[in-house]
Amino acid sequence: MFIQESCAGFLDKLAAKDAVPGGGGAAAFAGALGAALASMVCNLTLGKKKYQEVENTVQEILQATTQVRQELTALVQADAEAFGALMQAYKLPKESSIEQDFRTQTISLKSIAASEVPWQIALACKKVLELADQVAQVGNPQAISDAAVAALLARAALRSACYNVLINLGSITDKSYIDSCLQNMKALKREAFLLEEQVLEKTENILLRP
Amino acid sequence: MFIQESCAGFLDKLAAKDAVPGGGGAAAFAGALGAALASMVCNLTLGKKKYQEVENTVQEILQATTQVRQELTALVQADAEAFGALMQAYKLPKESSIEQDFRTQTISLKSIAASEVPWQIALACKKVLELADQVAQVGNPQAISDAAVAALLARAALRSACYNVLINLGSITDKSYIDSCLQNMKALKREAFLLEEQVLEKTENILLRP
Repeated sequence: MFIQESCAGFLDKLAAKDAVPGGGGAAAFAGALGAALASMVCNLTLGKKKYQEVENTVQEILQATTQVRQELTALVQADAEAFGALMQAYKLPKESSIEQDFRTQTISLKSIAASEVPWQIALACKKVLELADQVAQVGNPQAISDAAVAALLARAALRSACYNVLINLGSITDKSYIDSCLQNMKALKREAFLLEEQVLEKTENILLRP
Repeated sequence: MFIQESCAGFLDKLAAKDAVPGGGGAAAFAGALGAALASMVCNLTLGKKKYQEVENTVQEILQATTQVRQELTALVQADAEAFGALMQAYKLPKESSIEQDFRTQTISLKSIAASEVPWQIALACKKVLELADQVAQVGNPQAISDAAVAALLARAALRSACYNVLINLGSITDKSYIDSCLQNMKALKREAFLLEEQVLEKTENILLRP
């Protein structure tokens, strides 16, 4: 499991020639960093008299941030496995026309599977953005810059994951699947942009207060 | 050293109540993820006949990405240490007016030190963006989505680091230092935006090619 490696070791594997872990895994990991920071803002809010009124809300946000972090760390691994299966498909024989057809079909199917993992990463990052926004609104303002970093990393990770969906679309033969992917990504990226804006506006209101 | 911890352990520490590692450390780590991905694009280009002409250039980019990754992982630690020193300053006695003056002055000085670490993080992330741009232009186009992720994570990390500079400015008494910080950040963020745009344009030209 990549997530059990040392941070330095994970970075070394990312930098190495092997295609996994690659951009998809790095995106999932960056999303997990964002989720962890959103948890930290919750933890810096809970148990303080001043924020007693929002204690239950923040407790719920904390649970959700912990869960989405687990999803994202699992997706680091899932991305590597889906990509490995796709690489195997490329190694199928392509002598006869039957072999060629089977290979093209298998590559298309494995590409769909390989594009679904970064799509899950993107959806999880959207959740991180929503949670960072929620805790930025009610949490301890002294930790507001951490909520901002959570949002910035989650949105960059979401956009990164979308490029990893995109790179797989070229080998997919199902045109309606491609069209719906492109549409869904466009909508998701727009929502992510708006959520990030909202968190950064709140952050600047606090940090640049005269 | 945080960087020797397991990835899962680092995320746990980030999520915990302790203020370090926090947003600054997460930004430095996200920048290091970007640097590692830029290295990977180099490694997927080197030694291939097709890219023999750019072998020396890519070798240089690889060295630079490796070096900036080391800088960024060291900055994860430096950020925690600078923040720790600032927290100590807040604990200074504040009974007499002399004590109060000394405390305010010490907090201001430690805040300058604590703001200089995220500024170094931001500058290192700018280097990652430049290197991602360079390798996106000459490297293996099959790894172009990894160059895009490198740029996205590095720019988000740079913006994150700037919020960590900003949060320290409130406790700094030297107004000319604050003004020059704000100006420098504005210019750096603009350059980062343009570099990211350039990498993403190149990426979309390749991935969306009909």
